[in-house]
Amino acid sequence: MSEFAQIPMQFVGPLKVSGPVIDGEFEVPLATYETPLWPSVNRGARVSMKCDKGIQCTVIDDRMTRSVLFEAPDASDAFQSLEKIKADFPTLGKVVEGTSRFARLINVNSQIAANLLFIRFEFTTGDASGHNMCTQAAEALMNHLLSTHPNLKYGSISGNYCSDKKATAVNGILGRGKYVVAEMTIPGKLCRRYLKTTPEKVVQLNIRKNLIGTLLAGGSRSANAHFANMLLGFYLATGQDAANIVEGSQGFTICEEREGDLYFSVTLPNLIMGTVGNGKGLDFVLENMQRMGLTENREPGENSKRLACLCAAQVLCGELSLLAAQTNPGELMDAHRRIERGASA
Amino acid sequence: MSEFAQIPMQFVGPLKVSGPVIDGEFEVPLATYETPLWPSVNRGARVSMKCDKGIQCTVIDDRMTRSVLFEAPDASDAFQSLEKIKADFPTLGKVVEGTSRFARLINVNSQIAANLLFIRFEFTTGDASGHNMCTQAAEALMNHLLSTHPNLKYGSISGNYCSDKKATAVNGILGRGKYVVAEMTIPGKLCRRYLKTTPEKVVQLNIRKNLIGTLLAGGSRSANAHFANMLLGFYLATGQDAANIVEGSQGFTICEEREGDLYFSVTLPNLIMGTVGNGKGLDFVLENMQRMGLTENREPGENSKRLACLCAAQVLCGELSLLAAQTNPGELMDAHRRIERGASA
Amino acid sequence: MSEFAQIPMQFVGPLKVSGPVIDGEFEVPLATYETPLWPSVNRGARVSMKCDKGIQCTVIDDRMTRSVLFEAPDASDAFQSLEKIKADFPTLGKVVEGTSRFARLINVNSQIAANLLFIRFEFTTGDASGHNMCTQAAEALMNHLLSTHPNLKYGSISGNYCSDKKATAVNGILGRGKYVVAEMTIPGKLCRRYLKTTPEKVVQLNIRKNLIGTLLAGGSRSANAHFANMLLGFYLATGQDAANIVEGSQGFTICEEREGDLYFSVTLPNLIMGTVGNGKGLDFVLENMQRMGLTENREPGENSKRLACLCAAQVLCGELSLLAAQTNPGELMDAHRRIERGASA
Amino acid sequence: MSEFAQIPMQFVGPLKVSGPVIDGEFEVPLATYETPLWPSVNRGARVSMKCDKGIQCTVIDDRMTRSVLFEAPDASDAFQSLEKIKADFPTLGKVVEGTSRFARLINVNSQIAANLLFIRFEFTTGDASGHNMCTQAAEALMNHLLSTHPNLKYGSISGNYCSDKKATAVNGILGRGKYVVAEMTIPGKLCRRYLKTTPEKVVQLNIRKNLIGTLLAGGSRSANAHFANMLLGFYLATGQDAANIVEGSQGFTICEEREGDLYFSVTLPNLIMGTVGNGKGLDFVLENMQRMGLTENREPGENSKRLACLCAAQVLCGELSLLAAQTNPGELMDAHRRIERGASA
Repeated sequence: MSEFAQIPMQFVGPLKVSGPVIDGEFEVPLATYETPLWPSVNRGARVSMKCDKGIQCTVIDDRMTRSVLFEAPDASDAFQSLEKIKADFPTLGKVVEGTSRFARLINVNSQIAANLLFIRFEFTTGDASGHNMCTQAAEALMNHLLSTHPNLKYGSISGNYCSDKKATAVNGILGRGKYVVAEMTIPGKLCRRYLKTTPEKVVQLNIRKNLIGTLLAGGSRSANAHFANMLLGFYLATGQDAANIVEGSQGFTICEEREGDLYFSVTLPNLIMGTVGNGKGLDFVLENMQRMGLTENREPGENSKRLACLCAAQVLCGELSLLAAQTNPGELMDAHRRIERGASA
Repeated sequence: MSEFAQIPMQFVGPLKVSGPVIDGEFEVPLATYETPLWPSVNRGARVSMKCDKGIQCTVIDDRMTRSVLFEAPDASDAFQSLEKIKADFPTLGKVVEGTSRFARLINVNSQIAANLLFIRFEFTTGDASGHNMCTQAAEALMNHLLSTHPNLKYGSISGNYCSDKKATAVNGILGRGKYVVAEMTIPGKLCRRYLKTTPEKVVQLNIRKNLIGTLLAGGSRSANAHFANMLLGFYLATGQDAANIVEGSQGFTICEEREGDLYFSVTLPNLIMGTVGNGKGLDFVLENMQRMGLTENREPGENSKRLACLCAAQVLCGELSLLAAQTNPGELMDAHRRIERGASA
Repeated sequence: MSEFAQIPMQFVGPLKVSGPVIDGEFEVPLATYETPLWPSVNRGARVSMKCDKGIQCTVIDDRMTRSVLFEAPDASDAFQSLEKIKADFPTLGKVVEGTSRFARLINVNSQIAANLLFIRFEFTTGDASGHNMCTQAAEALMNHLLSTHPNLKYGSISGNYCSDKKATAVNGILGRGKYVVAEMTIPGKLCRRYLKTTPEKVVQLNIRKNLIGTLLAGGSRSANAHFANMLLGFYLATGQDAANIVEGSQGFTICEEREGDLYFSVTLPNLIMGTVGNGKGLDFVLENMQRMGLTENREPGENSKRLACLCAAQVLCGELSLLAAQTNPGELMDAHRRIERGASA
Repeated sequence: MSEFAQIPMQFVGPLKVSGPVIDGEFEVPLATYETPLWPSVNRGARVSMKCDKGIQCTVIDDRMTRSVLFEAPDASDAFQSLEKIKADFPTLGKVVEGTSRFARLINVNSQIAANLLFIRFEFTTGDASGHNMCTQAAEALMNHLLSTHPNLKYGSISGNYCSDKKATAVNGILGRGKYVVAEMTIPGKLCRRYLKTTPEKVVQLNIRKNLIGTLLAGGSRSANAHFANMLLGFYLATGQDAANIVEGSQGFTICEEREGDLYFSVTLPNLIMGTVGNGKGLDFVLENMQRMGLTENREPGENSKRLACLCAAQVLCGELSLLAAQTNPGELMDAHRRIERGASA
């Protein structure tokens, strides 16, 4: 009996990244059953190597959350308790510090519906994605609050206002995971040469397909062609909890023609990932992390931010490549036929 | 260099299923970095073995889709073209039959926005999840339509109204993948004994957390605690394209107290999976399929429906177990601490 | 004591419309407390008079719906009942015909969640918006089905899968109300002269604000600046149930630069309105309908389609005017200050 | 030519309210073309008079927002500018104070997508709903920021992340308008006598229709039967900008059986309304405000909070009455037939 599911894995790249967090040329690993993904991301990576700054990556935010649920006697009581809890932020911060070397409480959000009080605790969690660290901290916070607010009753350690591995709006609006923007400006000439398309065509397709098409489909804070594919491949290859591609996939591809060049960007508000924690101890994960330079000693959180930038950069590569292909009738299917025939050969 | 990402995998169960599609006791494989998932699903499986009919599984629908995008001169022209295209359904059906032994066109949906015409072709695809089969059929349909409607111009082979691996509403409303409901009625006594909770507590938590909490979070056609976890594990272990857990995760946990017993159900409208195609040829996948009895010769589509039922059944097990745990303060974190310590030991 | 809320009302226009449903120059009434709305819509109307075809209006669909809810013993039973019900469409059609001269059943959609069966009946309703006609028909259908399917139990005459006056995705995807696209091509010169802007600026603003901004806000099948304002004014002035602006407001502004001109369009999938029924007998409503030429004898449904086209046309006018204003720093607030000072003078 | 749309208007009630904001018995005005609304709300009001505390109203939050849009050179620059802008909150507060006696800046939220920077300014606005006050303040803030951050370019005075009169998730999550919870506990006996139903039936219907049915419909942060109807009537009768019922309609009906009684509540996070401003100077509005005791001199903001409580209370009445009716087959349509026949008589 197998003890492992063996997902085919390859490194793609190198791709060029720049920005305040990470700078240089990197190869990144992707594990997937969908083999056409590798050449697709590779094509984008090749383009990045030809562009002046490559892919510029910016980390906008970094937090992990857990929302607990209390039952109050009524809404007025829930509201008064909430006011007190918020006013007691420093104490809560100390409760959290007692649970972990890394978890730090940075914010408290909330919702009241009827007599139900949902409190969304927001933490930094160092280099870990932080699921367990947050649950542990939330548990300590809950115990503290239940003992200091006898009017409140335990509802749930998770009230789904977190929200973990669900397609919701709250994560993008209040923040959950690493929020990364990756941008690249591609000269028109490179577009034609390496992507067989024009800036104008990519821009028009992106508006019609990713923005309008997704809106018509009732998309939820999402406008992209296939972020999920690149996320899955990268998450599996780096030991992440890949169920978090659910919220990870909610992001935006935005591009513009700028003086004949193509400005192409991906905005990924919810990259829930880390360089330590469950799954990170497996040999191939360690190898992969090492090859990306993410096992060096850095300030807590720095390695995982670099990881998120590399993830966003390869998402950009795969997204760019697919959109370029879809501007040309027949190209997508041709590529699949060619590659999968090759793969099975 | 590793050529595979090795995801830890275990069989859980047996679990008992019944219904018109599949009947019996089965073990199911889950590949995941989150080791507490196994005992969690196992707990639910154990309960299913004690319940009269086990987990009843019903397949409500089965289809795969691809939406193409045309540009018309204006909305009026788009509309007239659409009317003609719909009227020509039999011809379209033949075009599709020419592309594959299995793909069959079963429906055409559409959207018009401005002068853009999105046509959502809906197919059955035998035992394959059908991504490529649909793209190939859609390409043939597009070529046919472009040649017979010279007023229409190519927009995109995929217009995101499909929609693949995105959190949208269209898939649940119009259908995409296998639509499965899994239900189980658990005597109150078993609830207390094996799940350490009561029907009443589970029902109340489900309403507050899964229904109300997810609504507050701005969830999109979703009300569950962690479908994504069980889906990921099962998809990886059975060679599925796990990026489809994005839409797969959009489903509903619904339960009621019925005369002292717990009626517990999961509704999964978008299980995109198959028993043939990419990933299914890997040795461990074949082994797993065999162990679930899914390699026998059956009518096209039958094996994949059985697969979807087993998937839904194990989702029910994991969902039940987590909800039961969350009714009790402290239980969730205790379990994590106990299991992960064990796992790392 | 007042017996009426008196909402200030003015006719705006004339605006020019064209297309298969309605052709000519029309003034349209708007009732609102927000007086800057009149000059805003008027500005767009003035532009329409200068454009070759004015505002081209296309009606894509027309239906009204009511979803009933049944409780079945389990999902499998719900599914079997549904299959039978769908197969019995002709009988259902006759049941509906017995309830009204105008209501006709045109389609049946459904959802099954756990053991709950939601059936969405879709009707044409002549010139009425059709709320009551549909409820009456749905009641007859329910009675028929309860008597012929003793396994089903009454759940609700409305199961919110209709869905009425709620922001949902189902109405746009399956259809509810009149689905109208209004389009206009504005020469660049007119843009600069009457709208003090350029096609390029409007297009860029629309992408950034209406498409991207609304996506970030977690919008639901919606991308526009202020459809709701124009809808409210028109609904009140024509005796409509203005609570239906909730779903009416979910629509799309789409524009493009085309060879130096501005292609500008609004897509309104959910205009729930009629020329007969509640509110239509009031004197001022009759006057308004008459002035728009909507009291003539036409085929059932024709007057209400013309009404929907005029509504969409004035929505386009107001949307165009506001977007144009917002391309220029300071213009919006200046207009408000000028007009409201005037209004209060 | 009519200068006013005359919407039929009646006072309903009295209804009994309690809580920290407002206490007593009040009649409230509703203007609507849908005459069955009056007896429906009245039935709920009558029940409130029999319940100990009547309808308890709690105001959870109160703010009004405007999101502006800047274009930065790239995401990194947008992010750095945002950090500086947030750090300069006190200066921004002073800029706002210079624009109005009432507007006060209370919070700044944001989104960055590609190189676009959306800043959501949040204000208190005294007793006004605050649309214009916020736009004016936002304009001043924008001018200030454009002059102090020369790297930023004007995008739009409104970037749709506000968001006004659109069905989005952001308003409920970050707050916009008055956030009110109204609750009532109805003895089982009163349920049966005045509402012809039982607590159990209402609770079950609410779960199936409002929670599950709306989820299936792809509802956006919404779970109610017909909030929009009551909101429209009240907004029109009190001079509000009724286009704000779009976001107003996004709210939650939550109820539970508690020891044989019915706990029934409505949660309305987005009541955008005021007692001063556009529309409030009309004679009938003044009369209506007076009759509700809302023209007395109170602290700024107090009258509008009382108004919002009365609004929420009558929403509860109408919601309760409709749900109770829908628990009984045939009752809804009977009521419509009886009342509308009467109304037209």
